[in-house]
Amino acid sequence: EARHRGPGPCYRRSMAAPMVTFLSDFGLRDVFVGVVEATVRAAAPEVPFVHLGHELPPHDVVHGALMLYEAAPYLPDGCVVLAVVDPGVGSARRAVAAQGERLWWVAPDNGLLGFALELDPPRAAVELRRVRPPRPNRPSSTFHGRDLFGPAAAALARGKPLAALGPSLAPEALHRHPDGLSLAPEGHPEGIVLSFDRFGNAITNLRCAPGLQAGHVEVAGRRIPLGTHYSEVPPGIPIAVGGSAGLLEVSVREGSARDVLGLRRGSPVRLVERAGA
Amino acid sequence: EARHRGPGPCYRRSMAAPMVTFLSDFGLRDVFVGVVEATVRAAAPEVPFVHLGHELPPHDVVHGALMLYEAAPYLPDGCVVLAVVDPGVGSARRAVAAQGERLWWVAPDNGLLGFALELDPPRAAVELRRVRPPRPNRPSSTFHGRDLFGPAAAALARGKPLAALGPSLAPEALHRHPDGLSLAPEGHPEGIVLSFDRFGNAITNLRCAPGLQAGHVEVAGRRIPLGTHYSEVPPGIPIAVGGSAGLLEVSVREGSARDVLGLRRGSPVRLVERAGA
Amino acid sequence: EARHRGPGPCYRRSMAAPMVTFLSDFGLRDVFVGVVEATVRAAAPEVPFVHLGHELPPHDVVHGALMLYEAAPYLPDGCVVLAVVDPGVGSARRAVAAQGERLWWVAPDNGLLGFALELDPPRAAVELRRVRPPRPNRPSSTFHGRDLFGPAAAALARGKPLAALGPSLAPEALHRHPDGLSLAPEGHPEGIVLSFDRFGNAITNLRCAPGLQAGHVEVAGRRIPLGTHYSEVPPGIPIAVGGSAGLLEVSVREGSARDVLGLRRGSPVRLVERAGA
Repeated sequence: EARHRGPGPCYRRSMAAPMVTFLSDFGLRDVFVGVVEATVRAAAPEVPFVHLGHELPPHDVVHGALMLYEAAPYLPDGCVVLAVVDPGVGSARRAVAAQGERLWWVAPDNGLLGFALELDPPRAAVELRRVRPPRPNRPSSTFHGRDLFGPAAAALARGKPLAALGPSLAPEALHRHPDGLSLAPEGHPEGIVLSFDRFGNAITNLRCAPGLQAGHVEVAGRRIPLGTHYSEVPPGIPIAVGGSAGLLEVSVREGSARDVLGLRRGSPVRLVERAGA
Repeated sequence: EARHRGPGPCYRRSMAAPMVTFLSDFGLRDVFVGVVEATVRAAAPEVPFVHLGHELPPHDVVHGALMLYEAAPYLPDGCVVLAVVDPGVGSARRAVAAQGERLWWVAPDNGLLGFALELDPPRAAVELRRVRPPRPNRPSSTFHGRDLFGPAAAALARGKPLAALGPSLAPEALHRHPDGLSLAPEGHPEGIVLSFDRFGNAITNLRCAPGLQAGHVEVAGRRIPLGTHYSEVPPGIPIAVGGSAGLLEVSVREGSARDVLGLRRGSPVRLVERAGA
Repeated sequence: EARHRGPGPCYRRSMAAPMVTFLSDFGLRDVFVGVVEATVRAAAPEVPFVHLGHELPPHDVVHGALMLYEAAPYLPDGCVVLAVVDPGVGSARRAVAAQGERLWWVAPDNGLLGFALELDPPRAAVELRRVRPPRPNRPSSTFHGRDLFGPAAAALARGKPLAALGPSLAPEALHRHPDGLSLAPEGHPEGIVLSFDRFGNAITNLRCAPGLQAGHVEVAGRRIPLGTHYSEVPPGIPIAVGGSAGLLEVSVREGSARDVLGLRRGSPVRLVERAGA
């Protein structure tokens, strides 16, 4: 939490949010994303709506949690983050909203928010039980992104208080470990590959300050040098860098680390700084 | 039509539309979508622009028609729907605009609007013959999304009357059956698979009220139980549910019904309610 | 340049731009695109933000350059174009901004702007050396789209002068040949395939007026007739047309020219007009 700058809470309640952002594993070839945006914008027309990412690997809560961790520090104070990666839709998993130090969060309580809430510790949370779905022009079964999460985000975006959305939850009760996984403690040298971006770069759970230590990384039986940029090595060669998420990444310049090194989620990674090498 | 709520027509002519929405089979790796948005927003800067979906299966008018059917009830009154899935571009197929009970429609007349117009019956229609393309800074061949459909949508969004866009058409003349297919009549138990969403869920042409009947579905030589949510079955197990489009869907929890059951468009589906089982 | 209409420069400095547009090879399943949009919109909230295209073939500067060439004539005067396809991020390649006749450009100087600048000749350019990154709520390594190109685009969008972003560059020094490739001179009959759109249509480097000449195209050992629309031939049959980019394209109706004809980047193409056939 020491990593947070700024004056702390600045909720601007009873004011509109500066922005609603939306992340999901919905595909763009379906209309789920568009219908959520249309209903949220119809309900909160004065609030800009920004897509953080879609087409995430289906049902992959860990990848979604990483994406939110990466985006959170760059979202403006008071922004409402709507996130839907929800393999358990319709099951007993709770739907929740939370008020962090800087941001508002609306998501299924399945660990999707777990990593991001490290950067924006929750001050208050509710279970979404008193949310009014949009009234369609035909009967409808439930689609939680459209009927529950979207309307909750629109309500918060317009300045409605959190408590209006449902009974309060202890912030400590929020699910913080997607698929049982965690980011490694600060300074911890052993971790795993958590996910991959579209270029095949492997994102690990090892925290990594930007001015990177000299040393190397051991992964997939290989020793990969630490660097600052992919471009320090020739195309096709692996390098480990401090990624834009503040986590150690293993990359292959102009190639896919996943394919070249045969990595998968859970592959062990060890960071060896120069002094210890 | 009994399914429509609301006071009926409320066109707010000579007012800007609340929103333009855009659906296409264009890819996001090309600039077709972006150029259409840029030209429509330059022509109607005060109207919000929402993407309903893109990257639809190329030339798949049936999938596009389903997507519009799913989205229509959630779009605000007076919204302009721009839809371009157009395998016949340049052929004799008409380009049309229509005024429904609640919404405005702009599309090729190839059946793409067929399902959605059941929910928003057309009151008036025109052939797009008097639409002015954007003036580019170089000569250009025709790209109908940019030069015909987009400008027509922008004109309607700004409040221009339908009749200004071309000669009028009988609403009954609009093409209502994409690829010759139809939604089954209400209560009809026999139908087919129409399309698949990105998760591999199969969307059928059987209408399905949300509070689903007890019973099962026969498809691909199997008997699949009816349920309310995917989460009622373990991962990997098929279930039939009333989907968010108001149509019966066949799903496999955390899997692809298409792959697991070997389904394709046209696969026969039979709904057997408990009493008849 | 003779192809440019309009009164020439109209920069409206000290006014907000009408629009920021954004093209990249980032994937939508990652949050790069969303974070860039969120930071640009937070910095220039009054300026509309339009996505021109993403998920471009990774690191494919030639495809990106073609997309910008296609879009440029349709962007409104004063629009800021933010383009990031950047295989050399972190290397010695310059980051630049340029002021064209009509538009503003922000990109890596790797040829990505090369084709588009033919349509919007640069009057002034700078190297991006004095750009202030967004202040995140945690330390961060560098992500140039977010920390350099995005903020530069936001600054121009708000009316900041070009010279404030860094030392000036001779416009002639801008890299104009992505991967060493060029558009063919006007009237030149021999060229190559440059790239493919999502439908598999092959885009060549041969310029092509819209009212197309009679004749044919020789490509992949075949003789393909020239036409005006795909729909002039039956499904599955190849045809060459003047594409929406003003370049000759080779298409297969309702199919992929790339697959059917076995084309790749660099495949030779020869345009034979009727008189010479």
